[in-house]
Amino acid sequence: AIVNTLLQTDSQTSDWAGRRVVITAGPTREAIDPVRYLTNHSSGRMGYALAQAAARRGAEVVLISGPVSLPTPAGVRRVDVTSAEEMWAAARTEAAGADLFVGAAAVADYRVDSVAEQKQKKQGRDGQWQLTLVENPDIIQGVAAMDQRPARVVGFAAETRDVETYARDKLARKKLDWIVANDVSRSDIGFNSTDNEVMVFGRDNQRYDMGRQPKSVLADALLDLFARAD
Amino acid sequence: AIVNTLLQTDSQTSDWAGRRVVITAGPTREAIDPVRYLTNHSSGRMGYALAQAAARRGAEVVLISGPVSLPTPAGVRRVDVTSAEEMWAAARTEAAGADLFVGAAAVADYRVDSVAEQKQKKQGRDGQWQLTLVENPDIIQGVAAMDQRPARVVGFAAETRDVETYARDKLARKKLDWIVANDVSRSDIGFNSTDNEVMVFGRDNQRYDMGRQPKSVLADALLDLFARAD
Repeated sequence: AIVNTLLQTDSQTSDWAGRRVVITAGPTREAIDPVRYLTNHSSGRMGYALAQAAARRGAEVVLISGPVSLPTPAGVRRVDVTSAEEMWAAARTEAAGADLFVGAAAVADYRVDSVAEQKQKKQGRDGQWQLTLVENPDIIQGVAAMDQRPARVVGFAAETRDVETYARDKLARKKLDWIVANDVSRSDIGFNSTDNEVMVFGRDNQRYDMGRQPKSVLADALLDLFARAD
Repeated sequence: AIVNTLLQTDSQTSDWAGRRVVITAGPTREAIDPVRYLTNHSSGRMGYALAQAAARRGAEVVLISGPVSLPTPAGVRRVDVTSAEEMWAAARTEAAGADLFVGAAAVADYRVDSVAEQKQKKQGRDGQWQLTLVENPDIIQGVAAMDQRPARVVGFAAETRDVETYARDKLARKKLDWIVANDVSRSDIGFNSTDNEVMVFGRDNQRYDMGRQPKSVLADALLDLFARAD
């Protein structure tokens, strides 16, 4: 019985052996000047949990990470980036030919059109400052359109309303295989929480509701799903 | 000799006994929507070091802190805030009649004019987004103009060029007693560093250059300066 258990565990923990997994995690920071920046509330926990689970299960894992205060999971190769443009450059390089790409990072949709080299002083008599933002590269869409597209491309959708509608639209428009959606207006899950509760939508109209659970447990459930042959 | 040393230490560590010190620290975050925000690179370390030193030397210390990942120093009462407007509300309440107010926080000069209740979607055909920012309350200037103005009001100036010019201008314009200035374009000191190197300017044209040293040591040197009778 003991041998059987060990074999099962060994089999379970190595089911991703020989596969290459690339994951983005955390926020990006978009500089306004040397002092100020735009960012978002992503803690990186979901992406890091996925990287840890995939490595534990035998995958070769590259974790492309925005600025977060989390330790690098054992066996994971971590590439640190700051801005969305840096994350896109790293993703393009690492994702080519991968078995799985998961875009768990909360990439800033916009950056400042021209970053000031000096700290900007208060300006204008009316006390207003017009900041012109321009669109960042769309990393998940870009990866899904690569010549050497990863076998599976999984996106995330952090929404505050109409979660399913926005998520399904993003899945189809960006030609993803799966999208993991959550409601970030809830303070008990999502950003900066150790728990998450998500809905997963597949390109063949699948829907899985994954109830509230620790991100580490959810990571294994998601990998089970992404491992399936279509 | 042993008694003498103990007495000196005791005297040294209680020289702020009976005095009330209010310190702001860390960045502020200005929400754009439930997901995105504007902020800056302040780690809060300098303000926390000052709070710790003042408490150790016997002061009653209130630390008004933006979002940072630092432990609260022993004996310090910490008031957590997020935005500049929240910090101003807390500062106005706590600073009245204090012996010393130190504005070590890197307060966002601007906030978004109207915070969106829902996560904003990409907008516009041209891929641009105009973000209208409006001025935040000027906390240090407001405190220095209070009816129950603290006996000493100390500001900070984080500059990337012309450090002395900007700092002296801020000192005079905001009617401060002291201003602590540093060059945040240097990566070896300042934001997110454990060391700092500052110049301190006084309202009577004093200037002190305080060479590179740990922020904990610098905190004691600054308190020595602020403790002096004028």
